[in-house]
Amino acid sequence: MKRTLTFASMICASFFANAEQAAPKNIIYMIGDGMGPAYTSAYRYYVDDKSTKVVEPTVFDSILVGMAHTYPDDDTIVTDSAAGATALSTATKSYNGAIAVDTQKHDLKTMLEIAKERKMTTALVATSQINHATPASFAAHNESRRNYDDIANDFFDNKINGALPVDLMLGGGTQYFIREDRNLVNEFIAQGYQYSDNLSQLEQLQQIPALGLYAAKGLPFALDGESKRLTKMTDKALSLLAANENPFFVMIEGSQIDWCGHANDIACAMAEMDDFAHAIDKAKAYVDAHPDTLLVITADHSTGGLTIGANGQYLWHADVVKGVTATAGVIAERLLASDDMATVWQQTTALEFTEARKVLLTQAKNVGEDALVMTVKKLINEASFTGWTTSGHTAIDVPVFAYGKGAEQFIGSQNNTDIAQKLINFINNK
Amino acid sequence: MKRTLTFASMICASFFANAEQAAPKNIIYMIGDGMGPAYTSAYRYYVDDKSTKVVEPTVFDSILVGMAHTYPDDDTIVTDSAAGATALSTATKSYNGAIAVDTQKHDLKTMLEIAKERKMTTALVATSQINHATPASFAAHNESRRNYDDIANDFFDNKINGALPVDLMLGGGTQYFIREDRNLVNEFIAQGYQYSDNLSQLEQLQQIPALGLYAAKGLPFALDGESKRLTKMTDKALSLLAANENPFFVMIEGSQIDWCGHANDIACAMAEMDDFAHAIDKAKAYVDAHPDTLLVITADHSTGGLTIGANGQYLWHADVVKGVTATAGVIAERLLASDDMATVWQQTTALEFTEARKVLLTQAKNVGEDALVMTVKKLINEASFTGWTTSGHTAIDVPVFAYGKGAEQFIGSQNNTDIAQKLINFINNK
Repeated sequence: MKRTLTFASMICASFFANAEQAAPKNIIYMIGDGMGPAYTSAYRYYVDDKSTKVVEPTVFDSILVGMAHTYPDDDTIVTDSAAGATALSTATKSYNGAIAVDTQKHDLKTMLEIAKERKMTTALVATSQINHATPASFAAHNESRRNYDDIANDFFDNKINGALPVDLMLGGGTQYFIREDRNLVNEFIAQGYQYSDNLSQLEQLQQIPALGLYAAKGLPFALDGESKRLTKMTDKALSLLAANENPFFVMIEGSQIDWCGHANDIACAMAEMDDFAHAIDKAKAYVDAHPDTLLVITADHSTGGLTIGANGQYLWHADVVKGVTATAGVIAERLLASDDMATVWQQTTALEFTEARKVLLTQAKNVGEDALVMTVKKLINEASFTGWTTSGHTAIDVPVFAYGKGAEQFIGSQNNTDIAQKLINFINNK
Repeated sequence: MKRTLTFASMICASFFANAEQAAPKNIIYMIGDGMGPAYTSAYRYYVDDKSTKVVEPTVFDSILVGMAHTYPDDDTIVTDSAAGATALSTATKSYNGAIAVDTQKHDLKTMLEIAKERKMTTALVATSQINHATPASFAAHNESRRNYDDIANDFFDNKINGALPVDLMLGGGTQYFIREDRNLVNEFIAQGYQYSDNLSQLEQLQQIPALGLYAAKGLPFALDGESKRLTKMTDKALSLLAANENPFFVMIEGSQIDWCGHANDIACAMAEMDDFAHAIDKAKAYVDAHPDTLLVITADHSTGGLTIGANGQYLWHADVVKGVTATAGVIAERLLASDDMATVWQQTTALEFTEARKVLLTQAKNVGEDALVMTVKKLINEASFTGWTTSGHTAIDVPVFAYGKGAEQFIGSQNNTDIAQKLINFINNK
């Protein structure tokens, strides 16, 4: 049988070329918060070039290697992002809400801390506030994800052999890092960090260590503002890390896939996926240029119970989703602010302002903003045949992707803690 | 770094041991109809031994290698089982409803036909009628899956170089195979097939060729009757094929995972998954005993928009699902037949007959059987936090599993047609 250059050949060739299983110099760890398999599947159909019969594989498809189990150490099998990130950063499961502490509330060493102990350069990039559950679980310890101020403090106070834990942070959170009771930004500056709070001036970040806080809390949704903010922050982070030349560990989070999922807002979610996919392109290109690097991508859990197809119809209209150019919150704001609902509706959704939709939107507008947001989403979900079963999380397994040195270690079905343990083993073998 | 016996080591070692990429002698192809990733994830939590903290990996977890894209060649990305099975059997996508014909309605050669051309022994096992869409797409050709009688005729008339296409068939379908206008069973018997229509006498099937038709159409649900009928038919088929010694191709379908999914009946679905899992155990054991065999398992699509968690709660109660011991149809029948709804309810669901449930069930009983079935399912779904978005299919990617000689070919993300093409390549290289 003629040997073809299959994915298997490439990934297994890597396994055997790396005969001593030497650890990669650099680790890029990307987490799509809430990014269950329905999101990566939907994304392919969302970006499909309809002029060709084939539905082109996405960057996700190019490097899928397995799936992961997400259950926490709690009285439920459905995790939150804190327990999920704790598992993914420490290789130990804990209770929902835990930030790198175990079920006895003792600190769990995170892979970022181990990397810092081993004098690697460390970095965190997110579209949420940088002290939100997922990045927090790499740099801080707290019995509750909701203790945002204490967690922010940890980003400075959690010294690793006297060193600050994270050399480069890009995300949101000025509300937590510049407070009346404490100004952490000034403390970082005093320690030699370059500080930036203007995302459009990202190119002015010229050094590590650096801190970029681009919003009071989370950055605006990709669909509503700068659509490629994670991609740009990722690109900047990787170029700074490359120039730095030191071995590095970076965790990059597509934080808001989950936020859109909680909101059951499909257009919102697909725009976040698009930003995350382009950020992955940057990471893959980094690995191609620096082969002594491992890229691993996964999710903490799925969100919203998203389904591609709903209501008995064998249909999902990606074109409807693509026609929506603002999040439901923004659409509702504009509908509230305007007497010409028809024009606002058509401009923001590309959907017909039918009599039925007019009635429902008018009724909802009269009830109030929340009702109007719900109705906007309901109409878009119905028109696109997008299904949702919850405003919370679900326990479906999540996809695992890997590329570069050591990628084959992640083939197959695994526990989320297995992913972390393999990365920790790699970090420990420097 | 110490080399551990990871899944990657095993699967890549197999790849390189098989240096010439020689094809396996035997192929076992298993299809879980409707078995999207929510089903395999839920199954793990359903069978979990709650006395241990770890959620034990299942047989599915032990051999997961990738995922597959399921879109058809049609004006939708949501496939039905006919287009899905056509893709999986011929490596060509077609329109929803197509039975091994292309979009021009020309016959597509199936891998079972290729196997028969190459003088392999061929077999089909299913819990549906054997002429249902999935097995039909391996043995027959028809522009519409609904032409059940014509498709059944094809099972006899579709000669491959003068030979009957399928040497061993186990499933349902006496309604289609014994008709007023034609008695296919007699025609098979006249060609030397042993015939059986009693599943409890499976051990009396002693030879190939053989035909076992154990129901008028589909067999009863696993939850309602013989819970391991697919496992038993699989075991019998594999032992007959082993005794036969000729290279073989067998397709085994867990047909009714999908039927339970369409019905949004979670307990029904988990019982089908359990039967399918035990059938996989048999197949794996066969591969262990006969290493020159490849086992590949996938699904045609997902069904029902099943989600593990629903309604805003971070919960899924596997114990509730396990406490349900009949399908909703049977529960409704029993409720209708009895004045003591409380006892019937508690016996069939192990759920409390609360005042709220009593009111809803009584109201539904007064409306009629369909309403009562819907209400039974609604109450079980709510109690277990199981979500469903549709009575139809969805377009989420499906898992791919593989074990044995050539398993590594299926690592990663692939089109459903890629799976078929790799198997066809293996069959062609005998």
